[in-house]
Order: sequence, then C-alpha cells, then structure tokens
Amino acid sequence: MSEVRQKAQLAGKACSALSGLTTAQKNEALLAAANALVVNNEAIIAANQEDLDRGRSNGTNESLLDRLALNEQRIQGIAEGLRQIVSLPDPIGELLETFERPNGLHIVKRRVPLGVIGMIYEARPNVTVDAIGLCLKTGNAVVLRGGSAAIASNRKIVEIIHEALDSTSIPRDAVQLIEDSNRSSVDEMLKLNGLLDVVIPRGGSSLIQNVVNNATVPVIETGAGICHTYLDATADAVMATDITLNAKVQRPSVCNSMETMLVHQDFAAAHLSALAQRFSEANVELRGCEQTRALVDWAKPATDEDYATEYNDYILNVKIVKDLDEALAHIARFSTKHSECIVTEDLHHAERFLQEVDAAAVYHNASTRFTDGFEFGFGAEIGISTQKLHARGPMGLPALTSTKYIIHGNGQIRG
Amino acid sequence: MSEVRQKAQLAGKACSALSGLTTAQKNEALLAAANALVVNNEAIIAANQEDLDRGRSNGTNESLLDRLALNEQRIQGIAEGLRQIVSLPDPIGELLETFERPNGLHIVKRRVPLGVIGMIYEARPNVTVDAIGLCLKTGNAVVLRGGSAAIASNRKIVEIIHEALDSTSIPRDAVQLIEDSNRSSVDEMLKLNGLLDVVIPRGGSSLIQNVVNNATVPVIETGAGICHTYLDATADAVMATDITLNAKVQRPSVCNSMETMLVHQDFAAAHLSALAQRFSEANVELRGCEQTRALVDWAKPATDEDYATEYNDYILNVKIVKDLDEALAHIARFSTKHSECIVTEDLHHAERFLQEVDAAAVYHNASTRFTDGFEFGFGAEIGISTQKLHARGPMGLPALTSTKYIIHGNGQIRG
Repeated sequence: MSEVRQKAQLAGKACSALSGLTTAQKNEALLAAANALVVNNEAIIAANQEDLDRGRSNGTNESLLDRLALNEQRIQGIAEGLRQIVSLPDPIGELLETFERPNGLHIVKRRVPLGVIGMIYEARPNVTVDAIGLCLKTGNAVVLRGGSAAIASNRKIVEIIHEALDSTSIPRDAVQLIEDSNRSSVDEMLKLNGLLDVVIPRGGSSLIQNVVNNATVPVIETGAGICHTYLDATADAVMATDITLNAKVQRPSVCNSMETMLVHQDFAAAHLSALAQRFSEANVELRGCEQTRALVDWAKPATDEDYATEYNDYILNVKIVKDLDEALAHIARFSTKHSECIVTEDLHHAERFLQEVDAAAVYHNASTRFTDGFEFGFGAEIGISTQKLHARGPMGLPALTSTKYIIHGNGQIRG
Repeated sequence: MSEVRQKAQLAGKACSALSGLTTAQKNEALLAAANALVVNNEAIIAANQEDLDRGRSNGTNESLLDRLALNEQRIQGIAEGLRQIVSLPDPIGELLETFERPNGLHIVKRRVPLGVIGMIYEARPNVTVDAIGLCLKTGNAVVLRGGSAAIASNRKIVEIIHEALDSTSIPRDAVQLIEDSNRSSVDEMLKLNGLLDVVIPRGGSSLIQNVVNNATVPVIETGAGICHTYLDATADAVMATDITLNAKVQRPSVCNSMETMLVHQDFAAAHLSALAQRFSEANVELRGCEQTRALVDWAKPATDEDYATEYNDYILNVKIVKDLDEALAHIARFSTKHSECIVTEDLHHAERFLQEVDAAAVYHNASTRFTDGFEFGFGAEIGISTQKLHARGPMGLPALTSTKYIIHGNGQIRG
C-alpha cells in the first residue's frame, strides 16, 4: 500500500476517538504540543538548517529561504499561534437546530468534525503547525503534504508533536505527514475519495489550480484575488486616496490587495493627477486606459490581459469609467469574486454596489485589505474561500466542521 | 462557441437581475410558470408522446417508460410542486451575522444565491420543473442537462416556462436547457469553472460517480445509501420488527432504505427466526453470516461484496454481532454515511451509537426511511447530500445559497 493511502487510513481510524473528545482534552493536547515545540526548538532549528542548506545549494532565492527559515523567536511565535487556537471557542457539538415533527420524531442538528482533512501547501513550516492546530481543535485528523523544500523541518515538527500527543487524549495518528516528495503523492491525495473528506490547498495559484483541476475529493478553494476599488463621482478625495494607497501598497503580495482602480470620469478630472502622483511616490507602476494616460502621461497602456492579472506587486491598473454601471460591468467581467470596494458619498450608489457586486466581501468606504480572519475577529484563519460552496470569504474554525442530524424516536415508521 | 458555454454565459448574465428580485416577484413568476404548465398540458403530453414512442421503439423497459410518462394528472402534480415552493420562506437576504469591529467597521453576513447551478439528471421530466422552481426561488440561474430520453418533453416544458417568465420579473435566460444529448455536453459542463458555481447530479450511481470523478466545478454529491439498522440486545422485539420491515420494504428502491441488518447475538437467539419469517413473507431474500444461516437455514451466504452493495431491492444482508463494538466496526467499514439506526432500550448504547457513527443522519428507535426533506419538514428537497462539505443530509432551499460579507466603513485602512 502506498504511503499516502496507508497514512490516510490511519488518520481515518483516529477520527472516531477524536470526535468524542471534550474541548478541555483537545486544548490540553494543543498546549502540550506548543510547549514541546518551544522546548525542542534547537532540534527544529537543526532540521531547518538542513532544508536551508539544501535550498541554498539548489539556488533557491533569498526571499523563499527567508520564508523557510526558523529561529527561536519564530518558533515561539508558532507555539503562540497554537495557544491562540486553544483560547478560541470550540465549534464542535454546537446545537444548530432542534425541532419536533408531528409524528413525535425529535430531530437535532449538531456541528461535527469534517473527518480527515488533506492539506497541500508550500514551503513555510509554520503552516504545518497552524494546520495541525486548526484541525485538531475542530476534532479533525489531518494529512499534511508540505513542500519538499521544508521536509526536514516538517518531519522534525511532526515527530515532536507526535511525542507530545502521546501523553494526551489525542492519538498521534490524528496527525500524518506525507514524506514522499514526488508530485505523484499530491495526485494520489486528490483522488482519495472515501479516505479524505476535503482537501485544502494553500499556496500560489499554480498549486491551487492543480488541486482544483484534478481533485475528485471535495476542495475548499482559497486565494486568488483580483480586487477592484471604484472611486465614484462623489468620493471624498482624502478618503479615496487613503483607501486606494492602503489597498495597493500596505502589502501588495497578498490576495486582498487592489489590482485595478476604477475611477469615475468626474473624480478623475478633479483628482486623478494628484492621486497618480501619490502612487508614483510609493513606487507603484500605473497601467491605464487611454483616458487615464491623457491625464497621467507616464502611465503605461493597460490591456485586457492586465485587467485579468493578479499582480501581487507594485503595479496598478487604472481605468476611467463614465458611471457606476460601467464600473459594475468591468468588475463583473474581471473580478475573481474575492473583495471589491466602492468609495462614495452617494448612499444609493453604495447600496447598488453592495447588492449587485458578486464577491465574498463587498466594501463601502474601507480598504479591501480587511478581508482576513483576524481582521474580522475570528481569531484564526484557515484561508479565504473564493468559492461559494460551504464557506465564502475568511474562514474561521466553523469552516472546518460539518453537521449531523441526530433523530430520537420511539418506534416511528414511515407510512 | 459550444451550446453549453453559450447557455451558461447567458445564465450568468441573468444572475445579477435575479439576485435583486423580491420574494413576491419570484413567487409571482413561479405561479405564472405553474399555471402555464397546466394551461398547456396538451402540448406537453404531445411532446412527451414523442419521447415515449422513441423509447418504445428503442426497447426501453416499461418501468422506465412509466417514469417518463406524463398525463394531465401528473402535470397537475408537477405544477402543484411549484406552488408548494412558492409557499416556502425565501432564504435569500437572510441576516446570518452582524458585528462591529473595534475600528468601527460594521460587518454583515447575508445569504445570497449561489449563482448558476448546473443540474445533470436522468429521464424524469418532473425533475426539470422541480429544479427550475428550487433554483429560481433561491435567486439562482439554472443550466439543465436532462437525459436524452426526455428531450422532447423537457424542450416543451422549458419553452412554456420561458414564455410564462416573459411577463414576469425573471428573465427567461435564467433557465437554460442543454439540448445536445451527447455525453460530451455533460463532460463540458463538469469543467465549466467560472461559469457554473456548482453542479448537482441527480440519478443513479453511475451518473453521480461520473460527475464526482470528472467535475472540476464544485459538486454537491447526493444519493448513495448503504444504510444499517442495529438491533441491540435490549431492543424491543415488536419495535425492532416494525422498524426493520419498514426500513427494508416500504420502498426498497430509495437511498434511505436498509441494506444490512446487524443483530446482537442475544436478540438473534430470541427473535431472529421469527423476524426472518416476516421478511420471507414480504418476499425479501436474506443473505446472512454463518451464525445467521445456522438460525435461518434458507438464508443465502453473505459476502463482503454483499455488505458493500446498495441493493435498492428486496434483498437484505443479516449479520449477527457479539456486541455494540462489533456493530460499530461493521458500520464504520461499510457505511456510505447516509442514515444509520440503532434499536435499543439501553440509553447508554443509544448515546454511544449516535455519537460515534459518522453519518448524515443517525437514528435511535426510528426507521431510516425518514431521511427526507419533506419528512424533516423542509417543504422541498434538492436531494440528500452524502458529502460533508456545504450541506449534509436532506437539503432544503438554504442548500442552494451562499453567503456574502457586506462591510460598511467610513474610511478605515489597515495599519
């Protein structure tokens, strides 16, 4: 039997024990894991050094090496992340509905774990611990398939957590690490219907697309964001400047940053030159429509391909529109349905935008950068779902649960 | 452009108009559709006759022809189904959460339509109307791909509904029928990410498996049910008899009927012979484990393959177990996680069973046949989900919705 199938089966066998644990038992286990990571930080750093050495000799670039690197402080931070998960309310067992039927059947709907969650992700070893914490807190077993660049770090982290779990109520089999770094182990996970209840990809768009395009197991798709901000005719100029600069440059590399700014022609006539100047000072390259380039001569021309690109970089498309309808049409065509914003003082326009734009999060007069589990107050984030099934937008712990109907009868049969 | 892609795009363009409709507008349109079906019943029956003639000359068996056949009374029933959907509460717009963040952001989570729903189903033309009603009530557009055996009936039904919608607020483009009866049109729908938000298969297990195995669009899987009933040592013999007979023979062809009966050895010693006699009188073939066959000499031997088969027929596996643990282990191995029942007077055993069995619906002392949207009081049923994402168990109208975060700010930016 393959490593993937064998480990998924072991994870599945751990589910029944996991689903019956109390919140206190799960929290105790997570705290034990957090402490073990801190106590054993030297062993983790040594293993991480192997990954770094291999990466360096393979010519990995410095920014990727930095994301891979662990030190005592980062390990403290990772352990602290687990402790924060401990402090969150446990969704498992929550009573969602209860009703009585005329025939006397008493029906209860409760939150239960999903079962076995497959996580497919890239190099950062903090995701390993994060995923373990989120899954165990919600009573799920987890099969981890991290990037090969972090394999020594991940192996050591999981070894330490396994040992820590042995003195708790959570069986070590609830956490499985796939060590086979061939692409075929990912392919196998994607088809493991019956053994994996869901697969969650975390990483760049090619990783996510591979999962979406090849999985037969249900997927929670996260990530892609071509986010727009529309500056309406009545937008407050100071607010519009603050919000668009924040949405573009506060952290350009993330999915909720702005890629295209749509500007009403009247606002553009009054304010676009000054606003463009601010973007220029922030080292943002502008790509504009013809009208934009008439006002901002240094902007490069924007193509449809630009409008369809998630730059995650200091590049911004600017398009002047004649009215709200044209803005809505552009968004409907190019949006990835992640986060979209209107800046306006016209409440009717705001209402239309919030109603008509189809996205996980729609904003009036605030930066799209707030689409985030922590900013929403969830205390944790599994990712930001860009699909419409199961969960949409920032996902907290309840996104890692399912439901179950429990029916109490006294001999009812169907007539 | 292919028919599938073109029609999915038209459906997508109708979504924006649909999502803004009031409940009254949607109900008015559904009532207009219901009336039009009744008024035009002769045209539908004539089209249906084409399908029946073609089916008969192709050698289709009589039970399939019966499921395909429409007459005035059946069309009345189908129209009545639409009127029942009108009477149900509209989930769209429902306020699910509202919270204020320390920075003053006001966040609202509301129920919204999924968007464009692809329905892939078999011959019965009533499913066409049912799907249209459920999707439109929840503000979704629908792309229908019914079986080729019903194509003339479906074409006429959709033509009549299109004409009826023209005098209402729902654009006719919200309802699209794929007329290409080649398998390739199904294959194309399954890969239509970005144009279809979800695909729902309805039909036999080969249809469902094809969808699950090949779709890259998110799927709501429905249907497969290998349901067990466990008769514990303390089960009331009369109740056990009533429940198991009901679960097996009241309607063997459906997914919530019982396929395997697990019997505690003590209960078996006292009651299995008499119970087997009742199944025999109901023309149920028994396939038993060795111990069962020692008590019921006419039972055939049961194999692991039998335990893994959804018969949907007058056949029942019977296995004697030594205790609850053995019953739980058998269920964990063979269950499709649909509906599972324990009959017992021992409340501790009942609690363990309800807690530990992983299924959409778990029963104490009632027939598994109750797993059904109407029996649960939902007033409609899209299907019974056997997956854990999005919806589990009988699905009412809320299963055809997603959510959206609406964020009101006054210039907030992220620090």
